[in-house]
Amino acid sequence: MFSSGTICIGGLPGVGSVGKIAADYLSTALECITFKPFYSKGFPAQVMVSDGLTELFRAELKVPKDRSNMYVLCGDAQPLEIEEMYSLAEDILEAVKSQNVTDFITLAAYVGDSKEKVVGAASEPDLVAELEKNGIPKLRNAAIGGINGLLAGLSPLYGIRGYCLLGITSGEALIDLKAAKNLLEAATQLLDLDIAIDGLDFEDSKEVSCYQETDMNYR
Amino acid sequence: MFSSGTICIGGLPGVGSVGKIAADYLSTALECITFKPFYSKGFPAQVMVSDGLTELFRAELKVPKDRSNMYVLCGDAQPLEIEEMYSLAEDILEAVKSQNVTDFITLAAYVGDSKEKVVGAASEPDLVAELEKNGIPKLRNAAIGGINGLLAGLSPLYGIRGYCLLGITSGEALIDLKAAKNLLEAATQLLDLDIAIDGLDFEDSKEVSCYQETDMNYR
Amino acid sequence: MFSSGTICIGGLPGVGSVGKIAADYLSTALECITFKPFYSKGFPAQVMVSDGLTELFRAELKVPKDRSNMYVLCGDAQPLEIEEMYSLAEDILEAVKSQNVTDFITLAAYVGDSKEKVVGAASEPDLVAELEKNGIPKLRNAAIGGINGLLAGLSPLYGIRGYCLLGITSGEALIDLKAAKNLLEAATQLLDLDIAIDGLDFEDSKEVSCYQETDMNYR
Amino acid sequence: MFSSGTICIGGLPGVGSVGKIAADYLSTALECITFKPFYSKGFPAQVMVSDGLTELFRAELKVPKDRSNMYVLCGDAQPLEIEEMYSLAEDILEAVKSQNVTDFITLAAYVGDSKEKVVGAASEPDLVAELEKNGIPKLRNAAIGGINGLLAGLSPLYGIRGYCLLGITSGEALIDLKAAKNLLEAATQLLDLDIAIDGLDFEDSKEVSCYQETDMNYR
Repeated sequence: MFSSGTICIGGLPGVGSVGKIAADYLSTALECITFKPFYSKGFPAQVMVSDGLTELFRAELKVPKDRSNMYVLCGDAQPLEIEEMYSLAEDILEAVKSQNVTDFITLAAYVGDSKEKVVGAASEPDLVAELEKNGIPKLRNAAIGGINGLLAGLSPLYGIRGYCLLGITSGEALIDLKAAKNLLEAATQLLDLDIAIDGLDFEDSKEVSCYQETDMNYR
Repeated sequence: MFSSGTICIGGLPGVGSVGKIAADYLSTALECITFKPFYSKGFPAQVMVSDGLTELFRAELKVPKDRSNMYVLCGDAQPLEIEEMYSLAEDILEAVKSQNVTDFITLAAYVGDSKEKVVGAASEPDLVAELEKNGIPKLRNAAIGGINGLLAGLSPLYGIRGYCLLGITSGEALIDLKAAKNLLEAATQLLDLDIAIDGLDFEDSKEVSCYQETDMNYR
Repeated sequence: MFSSGTICIGGLPGVGSVGKIAADYLSTALECITFKPFYSKGFPAQVMVSDGLTELFRAELKVPKDRSNMYVLCGDAQPLEIEEMYSLAEDILEAVKSQNVTDFITLAAYVGDSKEKVVGAASEPDLVAELEKNGIPKLRNAAIGGINGLLAGLSPLYGIRGYCLLGITSGEALIDLKAAKNLLEAATQLLDLDIAIDGLDFEDSKEVSCYQETDMNYR
Repeated sequence: MFSSGTICIGGLPGVGSVGKIAADYLSTALECITFKPFYSKGFPAQVMVSDGLTELFRAELKVPKDRSNMYVLCGDAQPLEIEEMYSLAEDILEAVKSQNVTDFITLAAYVGDSKEKVVGAASEPDLVAELEKNGIPKLRNAAIGGINGLLAGLSPLYGIRGYCLLGITSGEALIDLKAAKNLLEAATQLLDLDIAIDGLDFEDSKEVSCYQETDMNYR
């Protein structure tokens, strides 16, 4: 389905960190390096500190070590204000447009009971049909919130085909590794990526750090 | 009253979706096509999905198939922030100004008991008197909230006459089709439009979908 | 104290409408006409309707009929957002600067018990002393909130001397005509204005309309 | 550690006013004069009045009387909105960049129990190690909130090394002079400044005025 053209795939953190974990996994597995960082005045007004080292919130457009027709989008947080969500989405789309990206696939989560593991949406009816042919049932009537939804929805304004793949989660876990794994399996199959998903131990969620868990008693 | 000049009529969703239903009905009945879409960073930060297809929130300036002196304004939502309401109203007014629109009529709702079915307001005393001559009693002391009020109020700054027609509603129904029908009857009579309002079954409200009813469990 | 130079005096609505009533009275008594209107995206997102006529919220810089060295600032509302308060204050100060205004006097309210009727503040120690010589005791340690405080505080950045006169009010009345009268007396004496303050019946507050009292059931 | 290059040190008010007191003390002890004031539309919408004199909220970049390779940052408040925090931080960093500042050290507070008196963070691992060598233990996993964190985090985007020194406080006192003194001792030792910290009576906190304590009953 994506054999020609240039793909950008990824997402910023949402429910259960499903999309973020999948994007970060892709970034690691494909040995990506940062192509362009994005900052936003909508990110939390703080600097993260890890072992004494300060790090600003950022989104990052990355390139795999051995592929020229693919970008991976990762990030630490979504902007807190709607206006900044739109602005950051536009900044990212302008950047990928200038790199001739033709298809933008965001990775997100769907909260609810469903017999499916992953569902999808796209910006054109033909693309929805293609997803279905590739084993990704369509999301019916819903709203995809946050910047992952906006990126898929705004893509056509930049001449880019937009998609959203959603891993189904109960929404109860702060971090849903199972949903992330399902999402990764669907994405790698769709993109025909040769990645071993079992390479990471998805049973052990203790090592995954998360923004909400940090100590906020500093100022 | 509007035999000369170029009219823009319509509105974005408000109480009971009264103005939106009326505007959408006009758009369908006059077989309008989209002339210019408007996006706003004040719209909800999400993409709507319908049968797998992603669609951004937007407002749309439309033109009837067989009329050159008329525009219809429709839209999915109002911006959530005041500043963005003003900005979107200005964007719309600049667009219609460049198309030589002379009169801008917004369609909205009035919540309250009243013996009237529809009331009106305008940006000049003469226009208020004209509305009354045409059977639209004037709204006395009140505030018309949201972008439909702003569009009418800002019109004079663009050299455009501004009007607001308000269908009276109890404000209790999520969707008040009766009020929308009253508003449509007043508008079509005022504009001398030959449209069959009974063409749609206003008794059956079940088919009218609404933003608030969508499943928000996606991200 | 203000015999030379060009004065701008007035204010936007605050506690008890004290400053607004005083500014509106000056505007009427001096037979002012509007010199420049100011709109703000921070004003409430609505249009006011009075007897069928739509009117946007605005601030207005006015000029007295028979004076060339004076401006009066009136207005319907303060912006709701801090950023817009600063922006509107800057717009107003730029406009008066271009008219060679040398002294900007805002009229506001002070909530609290005090043996004084009116207190004052200014942007230079000499001006504070001048106010005291003219019978206006200084405000000691306090914060003057809203755009009336900002206008006085920002004036020096435009090369303009800034003052704030505050009528003392209990803060309980929606409209404190007594405090407004005290403020007017102090202002007219300070500016040596020959205005009959008893010309309006300050005992009858029923005719004074107010933003908060309007019917908001329209949309 | 900072023998070469040009340093900017200071901070805007945060928890316990720890950083602000330290910055103000440095400013006084080094007989600083204001080099550049900064205003922000994110500061509270009010003007402070002290003994009749109006004063806008501001941040100030100051220069010591007898040093050419050092700046001190002081200020009255932090912007209330995230976006304005980022904007003010950028304004300050642009200003110090144009003065060839190489190292930006913010002074802030850490709320919590700790055997340390002061901890630190920096934008490069080498700098963290340098801090440790100089007796400042590193802050481990945490988030430094507000503009003091942003200034340290954004510095590298301007080619400036960023640091944050945090005085440990219980967070209970409105003003924690003890924590401020600890922070000052660490900072003066680190910068090899010859300043007598006992010159001010830190036992008497009554004379230290504070934004939260002012009378807000004015408008």
